[in-house]
Amino acid sequence: MTDPSRLAAQALDAADPLATFGEQFAPNSSDAIYLCGNSLGRPPVAAVERMAQACEQWAARLVGGWDDWLDLPGRVGDLLAGPILGAQGGEVVVSDSTSVNLYKLAAAALEAQRPRTVVVSNGHDFPTDRYVLEGLGPRRLITADPIQGPTVADVTAALDGTVALVCLSHVDYRSSALADMATITAAVHHAGALMLWDLSHSAGCVPIGLEKAGVDLAVGCTYKYLCGGPGAPAFLYVRTELQERLRQPIWGWFGQRDQFAMGQGYDPCPDIRRFLVGTPSVIALAGVQAAVEVIAAAGVEAIRDKALALGQLAMERYEAWLRPLGFVAGSPGEGQRRGSHLALCHADAQRLHRDLEHDAGVTTDFRFPNIIRFGLSPLTTRFVDVWDAIDRLRALSY
Amino acid sequence: MTDPSRLAAQALDAADPLATFGEQFAPNSSDAIYLCGNSLGRPPVAAVERMAQACEQWAARLVGGWDDWLDLPGRVGDLLAGPILGAQGGEVVVSDSTSVNLYKLAAAALEAQRPRTVVVSNGHDFPTDRYVLEGLGPRRLITADPIQGPTVADVTAALDGTVALVCLSHVDYRSSALADMATITAAVHHAGALMLWDLSHSAGCVPIGLEKAGVDLAVGCTYKYLCGGPGAPAFLYVRTELQERLRQPIWGWFGQRDQFAMGQGYDPCPDIRRFLVGTPSVIALAGVQAAVEVIAAAGVEAIRDKALALGQLAMERYEAWLRPLGFVAGSPGEGQRRGSHLALCHADAQRLHRDLEHDAGVTTDFRFPNIIRFGLSPLTTRFVDVWDAIDRLRALSY
Repeated sequence: MTDPSRLAAQALDAADPLATFGEQFAPNSSDAIYLCGNSLGRPPVAAVERMAQACEQWAARLVGGWDDWLDLPGRVGDLLAGPILGAQGGEVVVSDSTSVNLYKLAAAALEAQRPRTVVVSNGHDFPTDRYVLEGLGPRRLITADPIQGPTVADVTAALDGTVALVCLSHVDYRSSALADMATITAAVHHAGALMLWDLSHSAGCVPIGLEKAGVDLAVGCTYKYLCGGPGAPAFLYVRTELQERLRQPIWGWFGQRDQFAMGQGYDPCPDIRRFLVGTPSVIALAGVQAAVEVIAAAGVEAIRDKALALGQLAMERYEAWLRPLGFVAGSPGEGQRRGSHLALCHADAQRLHRDLEHDAGVTTDFRFPNIIRFGLSPLTTRFVDVWDAIDRLRALSY
Repeated sequence: MTDPSRLAAQALDAADPLATFGEQFAPNSSDAIYLCGNSLGRPPVAAVERMAQACEQWAARLVGGWDDWLDLPGRVGDLLAGPILGAQGGEVVVSDSTSVNLYKLAAAALEAQRPRTVVVSNGHDFPTDRYVLEGLGPRRLITADPIQGPTVADVTAALDGTVALVCLSHVDYRSSALADMATITAAVHHAGALMLWDLSHSAGCVPIGLEKAGVDLAVGCTYKYLCGGPGAPAFLYVRTELQERLRQPIWGWFGQRDQFAMGQGYDPCPDIRRFLVGTPSVIALAGVQAAVEVIAAAGVEAIRDKALALGQLAMERYEAWLRPLGFVAGSPGEGQRRGSHLALCHADAQRLHRDLEHDAGVTTDFRFPNIIRFGLSPLTTRFVDVWDAIDRLRALSY
């Protein structure tokens, strides 16, 4: 007899308004359960097709293809801006990696904010954020709870007249803690600093209102909840009013005003294009373009609703089955305080993660020393997937 | 009756040992003649297929694909190193754009060479090279003939004890002048400076011996003669002995030793990987990998031989037909002093370039104010293509 709670999960799937979106993704090659979309999103069929079309365009139009491709970083940026990021057109471009974009924006902010020199960041943040900022000058680390994430009080305590920039992740890559973007940004502005958010773990799964929150700068990857493909080009956002004031340090020809005049002297575009550098990766960008269209068609609000319901089911099963077996939640308990993944801690997490993958057909990921992350990607994760995954983890944990 | 010189061109095609390589590229969608591979190479069928396979791998292996992808920048770099660049394994990675790579290497060289601060470069160089270097600090421009390109005497005249780095293009993007890499590099070393070559217009069409010439640093794009696709990831080279001494300024997680320990403090890899930054663009890299395999299979020596013969035919037709009509060669006369494209200057070049494209089915490119560039890509350009193109240009020029 089927467990009543599994029947309830099946009922949630039956009532799921996003259920049909699963068909827009490449089918699983096995009956494995994939709970790692927080690391690499599954391929939208349209993204794979669009990349093939871009290759056909390369063959057919050859160098003439640049008539279409030249403004692709801005066009894909505009697709992201409104529906995904809550930004205006002309505030986002897609090109380069998240790390390179973070470097450009943080360096630009530091230059504009002189004589302020200090960057405030979080010592628990994703490695590349920490390393890139470390390379740029003096840092001050906030003291934040590793599970609950940085609060406005944590940030405010680190602010003074020497702080040029605060750089934080919107959703913590380990704990999934969702930061209060609007309140923190306001506090940072009050202290005369600029605010840069890394949206890698929130873009495409959490509604984001960059304009509403008055955010200055943001970066993020496109291969997690945006499903753009492994290592696909990343985005960057610069608030319109700041664009002409900021100057990033990598002066490439795609940032040059009147690029094909190939004139003497770097004279950056007055707009968001000054944050571009070299020739953008066209085939990869085509994939991002199609993937973002799928996410935007589903709608981030609807995605968030389902993510909250998936998270609630996971937390219920954790409470019922895993907590008694020695698991401890590594994420905030309240769904509204989390992004779209869930961290569960266990002394034997590394083995359990491996056994879950190899013996139980469930892909999650492991973060040193004791965290199993469950990525809940609402367009491709079913409620029964969550139920089955935790059921199998329970069976491995006795 | 067919012109005897066209019959001779046909005979050259019939005897061409590389003729069958044309079949390895996506067929032309029309009978247009494409002489713009110096800007964007035509698609190798294998590159398009490999990108599709990478998408299948994304679908099938999902995040597990990273077992294969993680070292792709180095694996593709090693493919380039020996056969294309004359470098050793472990000296080349493929990732980021040429502009970003140039920034990383030039900044690293400047830091290592302190208190020397000056970069010597060429005011006629490709825009992104000029702009990137301009952004990094004091520059000294050499005085070089715009057609013949920089000589060792031009470079030596600019050297003194303040010069940290010399950065030049191996093949000039306008005139096609081929610089004497070994002699110039030796002179630069003699003055205590480091040498950085931009190989964008020579990689894949001119044999390059980085190791033999003792070159310190190099960058280059993969979408011209290497046919990796529009905006495909670029390469960078750092001589083994220099790798541990140099530190580039963008401290991303792909440069971190023991990357997945995600530890505190940036501690760069001791090897070429310290010049990586963020997550590499896997699908785009797969295309570069397959394309480089095609070029390497043909062999750069054989490619160069055919390029010289194509250039000789073009120069003969220029002498016979175009010079009498007011054209002036914008490239060195001797084939061994050129890369694989040819610049022809004419007061009415902009119109002729356009008419050649629209009325005569020949794609070339135009460079302000008066240059038509003929890209001769030996794997896809036939001798009769060159003959017909110049014949059609002659007809438009009366």
